[in-house]
Amino acid sequence: MRVSSLVVVALLASLSAATAKAQPASSPRVDPLPSWNETARKQAVIDFVNRVTDRDGDDYVPPAQRIAVFDNDGTLWPEAPLPFQVEFVFEELKRRAPQEPKLAADPMVQAALAGDVKKLLAGKHYDGLMRILALTHTGITTDEFNARVETWRETTRHPRFQKAYTDLTYQPMQELLKYLRDNGFETFIVSGGGADFMRVWSEAVYGIPPQNVVGSTALTKFEFRDGKPVLIKTMDQAFVDDKDGKPVGIHQFIGRRPIACFGNSDGDQAMLEYTTIGNPLPSFGMLVHHTDAEREYAYDAHPPASGTLVTALAAAPANGWNVVDMKTDWNQIWETDKMESTQTFSEALVGNWLAEDIENHGVVDRAQTTLEIADDGTAAGNTSVNRYSGKAKISGDKIELGRMVMTRRAGPQSLMDQETRFMAALAKVTRYRIGDNGLLYLLDAEGNEIVRLSKIED
Amino acid sequence: MRVSSLVVVALLASLSAATAKAQPASSPRVDPLPSWNETARKQAVIDFVNRVTDRDGDDYVPPAQRIAVFDNDGTLWPEAPLPFQVEFVFEELKRRAPQEPKLAADPMVQAALAGDVKKLLAGKHYDGLMRILALTHTGITTDEFNARVETWRETTRHPRFQKAYTDLTYQPMQELLKYLRDNGFETFIVSGGGADFMRVWSEAVYGIPPQNVVGSTALTKFEFRDGKPVLIKTMDQAFVDDKDGKPVGIHQFIGRRPIACFGNSDGDQAMLEYTTIGNPLPSFGMLVHHTDAEREYAYDAHPPASGTLVTALAAAPANGWNVVDMKTDWNQIWETDKMESTQTFSEALVGNWLAEDIENHGVVDRAQTTLEIADDGTAAGNTSVNRYSGKAKISGDKIELGRMVMTRRAGPQSLMDQETRFMAALAKVTRYRIGDNGLLYLLDAEGNEIVRLSKIED
Repeated sequence: MRVSSLVVVALLASLSAATAKAQPASSPRVDPLPSWNETARKQAVIDFVNRVTDRDGDDYVPPAQRIAVFDNDGTLWPEAPLPFQVEFVFEELKRRAPQEPKLAADPMVQAALAGDVKKLLAGKHYDGLMRILALTHTGITTDEFNARVETWRETTRHPRFQKAYTDLTYQPMQELLKYLRDNGFETFIVSGGGADFMRVWSEAVYGIPPQNVVGSTALTKFEFRDGKPVLIKTMDQAFVDDKDGKPVGIHQFIGRRPIACFGNSDGDQAMLEYTTIGNPLPSFGMLVHHTDAEREYAYDAHPPASGTLVTALAAAPANGWNVVDMKTDWNQIWETDKMESTQTFSEALVGNWLAEDIENHGVVDRAQTTLEIADDGTAAGNTSVNRYSGKAKISGDKIELGRMVMTRRAGPQSLMDQETRFMAALAKVTRYRIGDNGLLYLLDAEGNEIVRLSKIED
Repeated sequence: MRVSSLVVVALLASLSAATAKAQPASSPRVDPLPSWNETARKQAVIDFVNRVTDRDGDDYVPPAQRIAVFDNDGTLWPEAPLPFQVEFVFEELKRRAPQEPKLAADPMVQAALAGDVKKLLAGKHYDGLMRILALTHTGITTDEFNARVETWRETTRHPRFQKAYTDLTYQPMQELLKYLRDNGFETFIVSGGGADFMRVWSEAVYGIPPQNVVGSTALTKFEFRDGKPVLIKTMDQAFVDDKDGKPVGIHQFIGRRPIACFGNSDGDQAMLEYTTIGNPLPSFGMLVHHTDAEREYAYDAHPPASGTLVTALAAAPANGWNVVDMKTDWNQIWETDKMESTQTFSEALVGNWLAEDIENHGVVDRAQTTLEIADDGTAAGNTSVNRYSGKAKISGDKIELGRMVMTRRAGPQSLMDQETRFMAALAKVTRYRIGDNGLLYLLDAEGNEIVRLSKIED
């Protein structure tokens, strides 16, 4: 069944390609884009960055004006077989239906549970899809919503790749984000996806903080519950950040015209136009064309779900937009490829650990603060108030635990203090050692033992 | 005539006070807040910053979570005798009415031109005010709107202080913004004022870039004019960033709960509550109480226009919000006080200069690129396409011209290139010298002569 560009309307956005010789990057140490083959696309990006950062050149752009915008679905991660936020909606309904008879009785929920996408998209306004979006995205606090997205991230896997969705980002685009930031650019997501959905993990996954995520939004309602202020999600003043909505969203949320724009579908055409046509500053446009059925997906006019690429592809040559051919321009697709091949570490590290001491503070007795490390380097745990998770970078006795995503529940002050101390300590960790006593010591850059943990036996 | 809190509803927000001994700052060289007297308010800010930045302390907050939000009207600059954006609306109508008979015939425009604020605020929905807002804020491109705000900034003066409105910022708050940024905070404006209005000058005036300005917004419409994409301002989906709208706007635009909040009126109460009540992180709230009729204004329950401060002031003690008494807590009010007293430079610099050479490129013949320096240190000029202006920092042979605000018109490529080169060169200037030949040379940090100018005789 084909959902086509319809889902785009409610949620998302996409991209495209040219050809080139595939060569391994020659000097991975200094090459900022090692996952990009040495083709014209890579050269175009590097040339542009060199031009706008050369203080003595005619095309110099001051850092404050180096705004780069990236579509998310299909540009930074896939949008097949369904957009990932739609997968989240389906999972939420599946999880909640058994406990919520009223919800389970809703005909559109039943259509979703049966995978009847056609029924959800019937009618001029996609009433079914809108209904299940409202059922999963409104009437709860922003904290509750964040926790649900976090649970989805931790517990569900992509049907084809069998990985957490947020591990399925494109390594070449991750390198590009970092390369631009290292050259004074400020990177923004501009996506049809829900801003609240993306902000839960954008910083941990892309290094893009919540305030740099432009997406579809609706108002919240401010009120007090149990004496504390909360924001309740609604569908009021819903704004769809797609197609013409993208330049509108850029103006509303960023207020400055970008000089670089990266997309993958017709939904990104307007923001590519806004970035590159008649811009008084030098500008750059790029489309990612999905051409690699073996490693990812291959489509343009007929995507598995969202991400139709027809008019933007046709408009690319006249506008000078660079079209990435995923198959030939990228020597690897997934962020984890490299990590899995180089990550080697003691098996003794794998397991579930309980914190006994954090920066010379003992731990609160009743609060179990844990760190679980899996054999693929996934790190997760509990601070006794919140769950956190992420990818550890481990090699030999080196370990980095800085990029964790955490739920955002509040708890008693003593536990919150301990949590803050623990997460701050994890962020400082650079090495580990396992003592003869079986304890795990996490060390900072100066070699101080800042966290001590004992193994929890299964 | 008193406009009271009504204007607030459409545009803006406010603050308050305690008492303390006024003492001069003892060590201006190292003191980050020299315009603040040594009172409990100053100490509270410094204590908070020390707590959250101490990596070994229990209250450490990682930089990514150090979000500080500032109301604008009444907190960073005044909102009397009328909110400055209302002054802009009146000036716009005054400027346009003679050339636009249809506009001049509008009864609400006539009320505005007659200063009949009462008539503008009649009716439940302030129809008159809404009408003149629509007449001045919609139907034009964002570039046109920016240019109009720029013209207002350059050409109008505050009725009491006889300065450009954007020169009337509070020096103690400017120091506070910088102090927080120097300590890893990201500073945001969260104002009832229009985001588009503030973004024109927020970076030059406060060092706050457009993307960090949260304000009242409405959608724009994306379309092509003469083959180029433009955004037309509308009133669709108008969002008023005031009262409960402030935490709503913070969530929508920033997506992260602040840990520090600065306001001055009841319109800021909700965002103070959202920042400080039940926040799992350490937090800080502050209200500026206008108590200085001599140097600025004195009001709370009965402001000259907007900025009513009653309920937030009453709620301050129970919530631990710090209340600034402008009269006793601040040893100076205006940003320019100090600059005017210490700025000493050769009179030979004052005048209108024409660029002859920019970084070893000659200048395009027909393009007059100018730099005019006034005896108060104001710098302004023309790039032949755009006007720029700002405050030069001059002392002895030192000069800084980095913070200029510019109109945003596009022109022929050759002129745009020259403009970019000129503005980039100005940003690099650290010293000047006037040659025996009467030419003005602007030098970079290495002493290279990067711009040569000749005097334009009157």
